[in-house]
Amino acid sequence: MPRTKGDHEARRRDVSAAVWQVMATRGFAGLTLRAVAAELGATTGLLTHYFPTKRALVEYALDLLEQRTVDRPRRRTGEGLAALRDALLDILPLTPEAADTNRIWVSSWDTALSEPALSGAYARKYAQSRQRLTERVIAAQESGELPSGEPADIAARAQAFVLGLVVQALFDPAAFPPRRHIELLDEHLAALAASHRPRPPLGR
Amino acid sequence: MPRTKGDHEARRRDVSAAVWQVMATRGFAGLTLRAVAAELGATTGLLTHYFPTKRALVEYALDLLEQRTVDRPRRRTGEGLAALRDALLDILPLTPEAADTNRIWVSSWDTALSEPALSGAYARKYAQSRQRLTERVIAAQESGELPSGEPADIAARAQAFVLGLVVQALFDPAAFPPRRHIELLDEHLAALAASHRPRPPLGR
Repeated sequence: MPRTKGDHEARRRDVSAAVWQVMATRGFAGLTLRAVAAELGATTGLLTHYFPTKRALVEYALDLLEQRTVDRPRRRTGEGLAALRDALLDILPLTPEAADTNRIWVSSWDTALSEPALSGAYARKYAQSRQRLTERVIAAQESGELPSGEPADIAARAQAFVLGLVVQALFDPAAFPPRRHIELLDEHLAALAASHRPRPPLGR
Repeated sequence: MPRTKGDHEARRRDVSAAVWQVMATRGFAGLTLRAVAAELGATTGLLTHYFPTKRALVEYALDLLEQRTVDRPRRRTGEGLAALRDALLDILPLTPEAADTNRIWVSSWDTALSEPALSGAYARKYAQSRQRLTERVIAAQESGELPSGEPADIAARAQAFVLGLVVQALFDPAAFPPRRHIELLDEHLAALAASHRPRPPLGR
């Protein structure tokens, strides 16, 4: 019986799941055809049908990471400052799935920094993310929930804070359980909301 | 003529410089005996005298990174909030040397996250760094430069912010030149100083 399109797609899903699992446990440093084959319970020979080279495997893994990040569910609890908070919570490793995705992103930085084309693509990706955060900062300023101040700077600071928190949480999940991420993020936002506030007239 | 202790130490310095240079340009992913040999203008065979295995090379590289980080010059411009600012500036990639060191740290996260023992060592290192920052936060609170608030949280937020800023600066040095790191850090500290401030009595 000929293999159907459904068989083919099921097999691709299995391969994707195996690549993801290897990255989540061993990082890009441990991403090899042999490791993916073992995870899949297949031979390395079969894997070379999908990935003729190590490079092809790495590119597939990077695409998979991008796709799963784009496709992930997003919070949408409100407008203004709540929308900024949602976007930042969407980055944090608050669930096991988000922890895996973050671990793979952090792991990919080594590869990305060593290749100028990839490094440029990452820079653009983070710049786009800052731009989206900047729009939410502006909306929160317009609604009066955030004080004035350069929106792009506030967005860059928020992005830096969240990325660094991801790194801390990956290394020390016991010290940084999800509840603490949310507390620290809310403290960061509260400090933003309180800063740059015009002094009361009597204070001068 | 027998080789002297001086020869041996000069050669070790050359090897260290070559390992450092390979890590700064290619990351841990590109750290191989072959790459270090090429950088040193030596044969891979000679390198195996120093590093019998890839693992020995990686361990040497991690030790070198730790040692250069510990030995780096530190700012000491003041007490209280200035001392906290100094400690945070000491982390940022404000010089080409600091950019190399940071790039190697970020690159090492992939390896560190994939090995439980190393991951634990990194978690302890970052916890110690947070503890030192916490002491400076407490001093700045005692001097009245920072308002009250949980010192460990303020330190964790500052550490996360600086680590994330390092990542952004490595990917996008054009958008994050050293001057901008300092501006963003000062905005972060200003927001800290302004937050939690008791409201003026007339405001109630």
